[in-house]
Amino acid sequence: MTVHEDTLLNQPTINLGVAGFGTVGTGLAKAIRENSAWISRRLGKVLHIHTVLVHDLHKKRHFIPDPDTLFTDDPETFLNTPDIDIVVELIGGTGLAYDLITRSLARGTSVVTANKALLAEKGPELFALASKHNTGLYYEASVAGGIPIVQTLKESMAGNRIKNLLGILNGTANYILSEMTSRGLDFSTALNMAKAKGYAEADPTFDIEGIDAAHKLTLLIRLAHGQDYPFSRLAVEGISKVQAVDITLGGEFGYELKLLAHVSSRDEQLQAGVFPAFIAKSHMLAKVDGPFNAILLEGNVVGPIMLYGQGAGDLPTGSAVLADIMALSKEGCAPNNTGFLEPVLPPANILDPLLTSSGHYFRFTVQDRPGVLSALAGIMGQHDISIAQAIQKQTPTPEQGVSIVFLSHKALLRDVQKAMDEIARCAFIMAPTVHYRIM
Amino acid sequence: MTVHEDTLLNQPTINLGVAGFGTVGTGLAKAIRENSAWISRRLGKVLHIHTVLVHDLHKKRHFIPDPDTLFTDDPETFLNTPDIDIVVELIGGTGLAYDLITRSLARGTSVVTANKALLAEKGPELFALASKHNTGLYYEASVAGGIPIVQTLKESMAGNRIKNLLGILNGTANYILSEMTSRGLDFSTALNMAKAKGYAEADPTFDIEGIDAAHKLTLLIRLAHGQDYPFSRLAVEGISKVQAVDITLGGEFGYELKLLAHVSSRDEQLQAGVFPAFIAKSHMLAKVDGPFNAILLEGNVVGPIMLYGQGAGDLPTGSAVLADIMALSKEGCAPNNTGFLEPVLPPANILDPLLTSSGHYFRFTVQDRPGVLSALAGIMGQHDISIAQAIQKQTPTPEQGVSIVFLSHKALLRDVQKAMDEIARCAFIMAPTVHYRIM
Repeated sequence: MTVHEDTLLNQPTINLGVAGFGTVGTGLAKAIRENSAWISRRLGKVLHIHTVLVHDLHKKRHFIPDPDTLFTDDPETFLNTPDIDIVVELIGGTGLAYDLITRSLARGTSVVTANKALLAEKGPELFALASKHNTGLYYEASVAGGIPIVQTLKESMAGNRIKNLLGILNGTANYILSEMTSRGLDFSTALNMAKAKGYAEADPTFDIEGIDAAHKLTLLIRLAHGQDYPFSRLAVEGISKVQAVDITLGGEFGYELKLLAHVSSRDEQLQAGVFPAFIAKSHMLAKVDGPFNAILLEGNVVGPIMLYGQGAGDLPTGSAVLADIMALSKEGCAPNNTGFLEPVLPPANILDPLLTSSGHYFRFTVQDRPGVLSALAGIMGQHDISIAQAIQKQTPTPEQGVSIVFLSHKALLRDVQKAMDEIARCAFIMAPTVHYRIM
Repeated sequence: MTVHEDTLLNQPTINLGVAGFGTVGTGLAKAIRENSAWISRRLGKVLHIHTVLVHDLHKKRHFIPDPDTLFTDDPETFLNTPDIDIVVELIGGTGLAYDLITRSLARGTSVVTANKALLAEKGPELFALASKHNTGLYYEASVAGGIPIVQTLKESMAGNRIKNLLGILNGTANYILSEMTSRGLDFSTALNMAKAKGYAEADPTFDIEGIDAAHKLTLLIRLAHGQDYPFSRLAVEGISKVQAVDITLGGEFGYELKLLAHVSSRDEQLQAGVFPAFIAKSHMLAKVDGPFNAILLEGNVVGPIMLYGQGAGDLPTGSAVLADIMALSKEGCAPNNTGFLEPVLPPANILDPLLTSSGHYFRFTVQDRPGVLSALAGIMGQHDISIAQAIQKQTPTPEQGVSIVFLSHKALLRDVQKAMDEIARCAFIMAPTVHYRIM
């Protein structure tokens, strides 16, 4: 330590303006204090939290970055503080955060943000603004917490075309599915456990309905493909309707259910979406349990690469924010915001989701009478869906019918939906058919 | 594509001098050709393989980078070619490669290399030289093939102290251990399979004796800790003596044997080494099978992070070389070779390997008579080694004695060696004791 102390004193300071001082802001401040000598040894500069914008000045805080850190609850004061080198936006949402970011970029101040919702919805506008003013807009913390996926796509994999990307991007959903799988719990019990452990918020909609993962996927599609795939056009399906019985049945076939974010390119078209899907238990992503995140990339040069780590939490997310701050604190480097030269990325060439192809899992609840299995299989065949495996199970209460599970070979989603529509009209169907993709 | 074609024509060219045109060089050239429009979209420059240095000009080549690529077998011609922006050293070894790198750096030309042996042995000298001439010396391809571990440690994890690093850094050794584990093969059979599959070279010494992994670990220690841990002082143990029986017995206790590269810091001292060790089957690294590599980092901010991918091969390694070339082709950025400001890193503060602590696995081959188990346990206790689990097994041939396996709680390696020395002198010992660490 002593070796570096006098170095530290003579190093220039990077003044940070931190908007929002909740979990991630506190994690960032702790990391900067704990590792200050280390950071200075790598960076040649001292990071200083100069000003913090908070909602409530009177709230008791357990951690204060520095004795001379200025706290304010006034956005104008925050924005007009001179000497701020980098603005760190940790408020979230698309209101005040949008104002702070656009005004900071417009005056040439670099911005680090963890705000995936804002970037998913307003990314093109914000990146164009950053480009116009030649400022940095960095967002490593927006996707998969501490996992360096943004940097990896922008830099390390920059020479690769990413043929396939499969991600577990929401730790809350992954924890819930892991608990349902390992303990046979139903969804609501597992959700309550996630709340008790602090993995799920009071209103868990964004996490369990796939919206948070879809925000992140929108960012990853840009980074991997250099195209803007509008968030509003992403097919998104959550896990709130997942039943334990399908997890068990899929498990009998050697599959595990995960909430996956997916994008792949086929004939220069992108197919993308967020949905619960089965993957083989031997697949590396199947081994990602609990609140962890992981992203499996398949580059046309590098082959498969997986990055794994904590997708949320004060320190993991703070680590990603810190990496961005350090990258932007370096002298001379032009900012690399999108990973591409164009200030505005072209719109994505979108493959109709109905034309995507994969294996499929179906669970039909049908009357226990002769001819039903044959009728189901017949409809499948008429729609070009080839059955790979099938089982029939008694339900615990026979009056509720029997379960028939089909696993298909690869088939188009369009054909699957047609077949399911036709099957839904059959008199022997006693409950809605459950369907998942097999990736 | 047409959108970018006219851009391509007007972009400046980065001329590459590639020394060595074997597997990795060909992989690089293929990647550059296949993805040229894509690279130019990200970089704003065109990569051109200008000159290639080969050993034998008359060897038949299946892939030629460009019609105007100059092939030479004369290092002087190669070095004196004007207009080379970046030298890519893919020859390997510490002879000609050393000359090419030092002379290129000395005249201010940046170097990209995949040469872990050279960097492990001469790193400090080469980094000092690069720093003196303010040139880049990049080496992503030297460690773990296409996995972006160098970039991650230099940039994304730069704000973290890396408390623990555990790596599977040699795909050949991992393939052999995976085959021994999944099929119950002995070492030499699995090695022959690795040779047949092209995973092991004719002389596999560097791979199976842990030397290749130790070269890579030397580089990772620098990147993670900013200290020079001399390669010659690393404790290195290979897998050539591993017996199938220990893999089976460890498996019964829930462990899997892996060749691990390890470094951790304790009280500002580094403990490091390469050795086969048991890890729990539920551990993410235990799931890394076949010729894959993976590195698990534990940062004091980010927590656990794992990176996984192909550790060798033409294209994965070519992808890492390409990433370095693209990073060095950017304008204005000062090179970041070691991840630290100092041109020369301080020597590592090395913890005596004997003072490292872990769990331990012992297999004793002893005479089948009363009192032996108690004697063994007694000696363990005298050396502060606490037994956590034990089993006794008949060997197939009773005249060769019985096997007793102990799994200990955490104990110092020093105490383990003292206990093993004392046990080796006991009359009831019929064969050398087998010992592995449990991480």
